Amino acid sequence: MLKTTDIAAWALSQKPTVNKNIYKLAKMALLDYIAVVSLGQKEAAYHSLKQTFTSSDDGTKALKLGFAAHLLDLDDMQDDLRGHPGAVIFSSIFALNDSVTIDEVLDAYVIGLEIAARLGDLVNPNLYETGHHASSHLGQIGAAVALSYLRHDNEVMMAKVIGLAITEAQGSLFQFGSDVKSFHIGLSARAAIDAIKFTQTDLTGQLNGLFVEKSIIDQYHALDTIALDQWFQAFGRPWKIEKLWFKQYPFCSAAYRAVDALLIIKKNHHATRENVTALTVSFGIGRDAALRYKQPKTGIEGRFSIEYILWQVLGDISPLSRNPYQVELLSQSPSNLITRVYETQEAANLSSEVSLTLTNGQQLSARIFDPVGSPKNPLALTQILEKIALSFSKTQVQQMIEAIEQNNWHAIKQFVVI
Amino acid sequence: MLKTTDIAAWALSQKPTVNKNIYKLAKMALLDYIAVVSLGQKEAAYHSLKQTFTSSDDGTKALKLGFAAHLLDLDDMQDDLRGHPGAVIFSSIFALNDSVTIDEVLDAYVIGLEIAARLGDLVNPNLYETGHHASSHLGQIGAAVALSYLRHDNEVMMAKVIGLAITEAQGSLFQFGSDVKSFHIGLSARAAIDAIKFTQTDLTGQLNGLFVEKSIIDQYHALDTIALDQWFQAFGRPWKIEKLWFKQYPFCSAAYRAVDALLIIKKNHHATRENVTALTVSFGIGRDAALRYKQPKTGIEGRFSIEYILWQVLGDISPLSRNPYQVELLSQSPSNLITRVYETQEAANLSSEVSLTLTNGQQLSARIFDPVGSPKNPLALTQILEKIALSFSKTQVQQMIEAIEQNNWHAIKQFVVI
Repeated sequence: MLKTTDIAAWALSQKPTVNKNIYKLAKMALLDYIAVVSLGQKEAAYHSLKQTFTSSDDGTKALKLGFAAHLLDLDDMQDDLRGHPGAVIFSSIFALNDSVTIDEVLDAYVIGLEIAARLGDLVNPNLYETGHHASSHLGQIGAAVALSYLRHDNEVMMAKVIGLAITEAQGSLFQFGSDVKSFHIGLSARAAIDAIKFTQTDLTGQLNGLFVEKSIIDQYHALDTIALDQWFQAFGRPWKIEKLWFKQYPFCSAAYRAVDALLIIKKNHHATRENVTALTVSFGIGRDAALRYKQPKTGIEGRFSIEYILWQVLGDISPLSRNPYQVELLSQSPSNLITRVYETQEAANLSSEVSLTLTNGQQLSARIFDPVGSPKNPLALTQILEKIALSFSKTQVQQMIEAIEQNNWHAIKQFVVI
Repeated sequence: MLKTTDIAAWALSQKPTVNKNIYKLAKMALLDYIAVVSLGQKEAAYHSLKQTFTSSDDGTKALKLGFAAHLLDLDDMQDDLRGHPGAVIFSSIFALNDSVTIDEVLDAYVIGLEIAARLGDLVNPNLYETGHHASSHLGQIGAAVALSYLRHDNEVMMAKVIGLAITEAQGSLFQFGSDVKSFHIGLSARAAIDAIKFTQTDLTGQLNGLFVEKSIIDQYHALDTIALDQWFQAFGRPWKIEKLWFKQYPFCSAAYRAVDALLIIKKNHHATRENVTALTVSFGIGRDAALRYKQPKTGIEGRFSIEYILWQVLGDISPLSRNPYQVELLSQSPSNLITRVYETQEAANLSSEVSLTLTNGQQLSARIFDPVGSPKNPLALTQILEKIALSFSKTQVQQMIEAIEQNNWHAIKQFVVI
């Protein structure tokens, strides 16, 4: 049977960014994190939290960064983890680490994400479907691995850190739709730091948190030796970061395919709120579960409403705009000309089709499998830089690029306000 | 269907210490807490934690107090909760509260314990047996209720606090047998304070954390309206504090019955390590599960070894002595003259029998159902005071009694070092 120290030994032996593609993705994830945390810090919710959680210790710093990074739901996303790795992992690193290089940070991120997403392969969808916020539960294990990697722990020490990260795991799905969802991410970034701090003491902790009876794997999967051996052999082949999504739009990624489909129609045709008489949007059965609001009452609920989101796009509002998705109460509901339909064929699970009728009777439709920002249709670096440009000047963006080229963590850290 | 606000409204309307017996028990629990936290603070483990978690915010204070209070496993215990209420609830109160009266604190404790133990009625043993540290999961809900009660919240606010406490719930059984078990208690005391702090912001949180889909109740029980209505009607009838254990001995309470049985034999007969040739100790099947070490390697493991514990008592070492149960490695294992036997009749679940043979051939035995400190054989106040006297002078103990008589929180707070 595998031991947690086996996982730790593997993690400590890796340097994934020697692969140029992995390096590029990790660099984009770092820049994307800087973009989303700075955007989050402009939100009223962030200032509200900051006024109450005033402590200046590393854990509280991580709590505030993690909260900010997830506030707009614009942070990176990975399907196997079933959640957002960067907001947890980078927040704990930025809060804790001074004497590291950017290259080390990027390796730590890729490895932390790898462990979290590989655990996701085992415990999802069970973990998620029984009511746990996977970004939080698995994210903090990934963050703890990343911090331990940056501390140059040995495998025994990293295993102890992992055991602490697991036992602190929290975050319930029933809090989705409230600010507590982002608070979970902050708590998880703090928990990773707690784990590191606990192992700075001479206190005892279990070394095999992953593969013992009643572990997270035992609860949501099975401690089956053969299956676990196969699972472990797949680590890094390929790296899970290669399935990372970068989010451009400040709303639920379950809406991305439909939005891109509507944008394609609009690119070639004049389709607006005024001249569209009916619009259907298709999902595989259950694939719109996160889009839980048909008549959102606030802009935040609107982030989880396909009707609301498509109505904005029909109104020629750029899907990049954050304006429609604020906390304020909405004065009007989206028109009821938009309806959802469900498709049973397998492709429907990976695509959405938008079909609409114009006032002149013309029928138009488009189907999207890989929306912009998803792994097979990735953002270009320039698009990440545009996201950063929402908060920083051209000179600052240039300084970030230089900091990364110079592998200078201290210089990049200036751009994350803690 | 019940709502979390119904539970909160009930909690806010209660003043249980108007009942003299409840008042007496709560007062003993408070004094017992002061005893155990001060004893814990003498431990090397506490100083180790303190050197690393140096922040002076309320949450970190609660973390350190909770850790200290549970370190010796001498803190109060409640069977329905399946764990230790005082270490979590009082730690969060002492860390957070200045402007309250002792009477209010005692009411808050009784009510917090009530909610935690009533939830235990629903979710245990499932919660515990699937691998969750119930003291921690349920304890922090109780602590959050207590803090919210002391803040004079309305039921909507308390419901929001409860939702936060649930979503932060953590603590895995695989960490039992390490210092992390006590760390869980600290984390839970901190989580209750997090919940209060979060609700000091204007951030949003769900108001019905208990009875929504995928809540803690949904996961470990069932959201059955009729059963829940009956469950709710039983609140406070009788109060769960009436089933509180006060621990005298610094080892696992599963050993208490056997120790008291051996003490009865020793009271009337000369039974020692030298003149006993065989000793059997009986348990109902599975009732010795927590006594997981037969050959403990350290004194801490010795706390969970019936063989080791009885060997100390046979050696005329008082079961009150903490000396045999320290972190140090043991130079010798207990003699193998002690063996466990299992009984199948129902009474065995509630009792232990010790039978032994002397070198002169004499057979002696005793059976105990209600050991000293258990609800039906409660400690006298003087015995709690003896526990306090391990850390405080007679004058100080007198000052504590006076502080309670004068309902003076400020005065009693002097005796808990934060």
